[in-house]
Amino acid sequence: MKPINVGLLGIGTVGGGTWTVLSRNAEEITRRAGSPIRITAVADRNTELATQVTGGAARVTADAFELVKDPEIDIIVELIGGYTVARDLVLAAIENGKHVVTANKALLAVHGKEIFAAAQAKGVTVAFEAAVAGGIPIIKALREGLAANRIQWVAGIINGTTNFILSEMRDKGLPFADVLKEAQRLGYAEADPTFDIEGIDAAHKATLMSALAFGIPVQFDKAYVEGITRLEAVDIKYAEQLGYRIKLLGIAKRRETGVELRVHPTLIPSSRLIANVEGAMNAVLVQGDAVGATLYYGKGAGAEPTASAVIADLVDVTRLATAEPGHRVPHLAFQADQLVDLPILPIEEVQTAYYLRMRVEDRAGVLADITRILAEGSISIDAMLQKEPGEGESQTDIILLTHQAIEGQVNAAIANIEALKTVVGKVTKIRLEELN
Amino acid sequence: MKPINVGLLGIGTVGGGTWTVLSRNAEEITRRAGSPIRITAVADRNTELATQVTGGAARVTADAFELVKDPEIDIIVELIGGYTVARDLVLAAIENGKHVVTANKALLAVHGKEIFAAAQAKGVTVAFEAAVAGGIPIIKALREGLAANRIQWVAGIINGTTNFILSEMRDKGLPFADVLKEAQRLGYAEADPTFDIEGIDAAHKATLMSALAFGIPVQFDKAYVEGITRLEAVDIKYAEQLGYRIKLLGIAKRRETGVELRVHPTLIPSSRLIANVEGAMNAVLVQGDAVGATLYYGKGAGAEPTASAVIADLVDVTRLATAEPGHRVPHLAFQADQLVDLPILPIEEVQTAYYLRMRVEDRAGVLADITRILAEGSISIDAMLQKEPGEGESQTDIILLTHQAIEGQVNAAIANIEALKTVVGKVTKIRLEELN
Repeated sequence: MKPINVGLLGIGTVGGGTWTVLSRNAEEITRRAGSPIRITAVADRNTELATQVTGGAARVTADAFELVKDPEIDIIVELIGGYTVARDLVLAAIENGKHVVTANKALLAVHGKEIFAAAQAKGVTVAFEAAVAGGIPIIKALREGLAANRIQWVAGIINGTTNFILSEMRDKGLPFADVLKEAQRLGYAEADPTFDIEGIDAAHKATLMSALAFGIPVQFDKAYVEGITRLEAVDIKYAEQLGYRIKLLGIAKRRETGVELRVHPTLIPSSRLIANVEGAMNAVLVQGDAVGATLYYGKGAGAEPTASAVIADLVDVTRLATAEPGHRVPHLAFQADQLVDLPILPIEEVQTAYYLRMRVEDRAGVLADITRILAEGSISIDAMLQKEPGEGESQTDIILLTHQAIEGQVNAAIANIEALKTVVGKVTKIRLEELN
Repeated sequence: MKPINVGLLGIGTVGGGTWTVLSRNAEEITRRAGSPIRITAVADRNTELATQVTGGAARVTADAFELVKDPEIDIIVELIGGYTVARDLVLAAIENGKHVVTANKALLAVHGKEIFAAAQAKGVTVAFEAAVAGGIPIIKALREGLAANRIQWVAGIINGTTNFILSEMRDKGLPFADVLKEAQRLGYAEADPTFDIEGIDAAHKATLMSALAFGIPVQFDKAYVEGITRLEAVDIKYAEQLGYRIKLLGIAKRRETGVELRVHPTLIPSSRLIANVEGAMNAVLVQGDAVGATLYYGKGAGAEPTASAVIADLVDVTRLATAEPGHRVPHLAFQADQLVDLPILPIEEVQTAYYLRMRVEDRAGVLADITRILAEGSISIDAMLQKEPGEGESQTDIILLTHQAIEGQVNAAIANIEALKTVVGKVTKIRLEELN
């Protein structure tokens, strides 16, 4: 069959990986796709690097806009990243009737509505398996594999940097700042790690998964985002003693009144498979009404794992190009005219369980005051850990695990607890999910 | 869009689940598929049951052959099971130009070559997500999600009954026969459990995965199949002490000279995520050259989990019906004319590591004899466990873990070890996979 010509925008880590895998496995990929898929042109500001990687086997240009209007090119792979130039390029490619494959979660989480609408209008596909959880085919699972299900929630370890840091903090009992430095030294964290450690990257991915799971538009601006920078080693230790591990989860949950979309450190039972996902690995747990829980695990980043997802999309697009656009797999799992406007709930309306740690004077009646405040807020206690005060100390830690409660009510109770004279400083609050 | 009419053959557990989920989630499924998908006719020998389940909302007949030629029906769902009538029905449906969705692993593992060729010739699709690992979308992952990869091996816990039995044997230290009875009482094992406990069901599934992973024809007759009936509780205990768990794995592995296709009890390191898959759950680990290891976990059986896979196939077929047949996703991941004839290797040529347990006289020189025999067979030892003899006993257990070796050479060494006068009875051999 006719070869498929791909224009590659950006030949950095993932772009280089895509070139390598597509070359190395060309025969096997053609046997699957039915047509040879070849990168015929590469755009990168660093034309020297591009020429070196491609070894003269593709046209190289510094001008990405040249490629997106090249009539010889069938599919554009966008691996430039960012919101601005990438957006212009993707929209221009669509306008020129080209299919687009992208790993750009930030772009789709923020400008997805506009981009998917443009693609829909032009009858082309924008595929983005590489945008969530690297090489794990989680987009395909949510969009196609679980199509029979009313999906109830999705919870994922979808940022390798933070999972590496949390694994190291637990293993070695070290504080966040020390482990971050180590992660940067080892290449698991970037020089400016903000997007990762503040949870923004995970929130981009959770936003995309919420759309796929529930048939709602992408709404990154409504997501609640909390990173791991304020997480203390002591809480990891106490969580462990209570039978839990702390992971940065991206959560999308269907409620009667709307959708919870949130990223934050989360206690999860140590016995859950997902609690044992260590290091830079990713995993996504999906709860569907028919299938129950399914888990997807693998490498969430890196040149070749991400290239694996990019190329899977290339194969899909190659195969489906002949289907009537209306019969292709829809971008966000649901037909474009079938999205619903379930609101994203504000964090105060979220309903989950909580880990609360407080420093108290070791004095009679303290616990009674605290439990009374919680009871008044209709917050019931599931487990408690009270430490003996250290030698010569007059203060001690109380750790409470609550049952499900409304976040707004928990916050109000915390304010009342902090107002107690016997409670020292702030209460540490970490959300807890049983994931069952 | 035009509704899709489905003819359902067999409304037992999975058929009933398919009816229920398709009814309950009709709105959500239509929002995804673009067309309503409805079961318009049901064939079951038990017409009373079929009428009761469908509540008059579908035509009911006892004659399945009537449905497969009904011009009003677009897709046939075959949930009858077995090799004979099911084969005739599937071939008749294909002959009449209908797409087929089936959960019948036995049929496809044994008659897949004929069935896929017939479908190819008629330009229709035979989809079988439900045939492997129930609700886990592992077929889709292998066929599409990992299409960029040269897949190196697939190893799966793909039979819930045996995994439940092994989990219970480990947890409670009970022998196989007792746990089997308990599993039958709880409904985890059938009255005649042969297909499950002898590994045949897992081998059907492993055969399908081997075809998808390597682009080879389905060749169930070449698979090596060993169940769990001879597994002793003592080996589970010793394995545990050495840091391993024993699981019944279905393994398909690419080697230079061919493909290993085998089902047998296997020691795997306890630290692996898949070693912690307990009870009736399933999980499949896939190693690709680009993506590395990915794991897929969920319920491998049951009415609604299996229905989830059946309906995902219905949605896929509905969407892809308009693609040119040559551009549809090929049945076995690779284009039909692109299958290769890599031979399935005989078990004697398999290369893996081994757990060997032997009963020996507690006498000087015994171990020297054993290690000499292994060394002569080029089998090197990775770990050893020697138990003290019980009080008043003159015999003791030696357990050896070997490095990778050729099975034929290991068998020869075992024969020599068993010939030693100081070795009592037979050597127990269990294969071991590091899965890394």
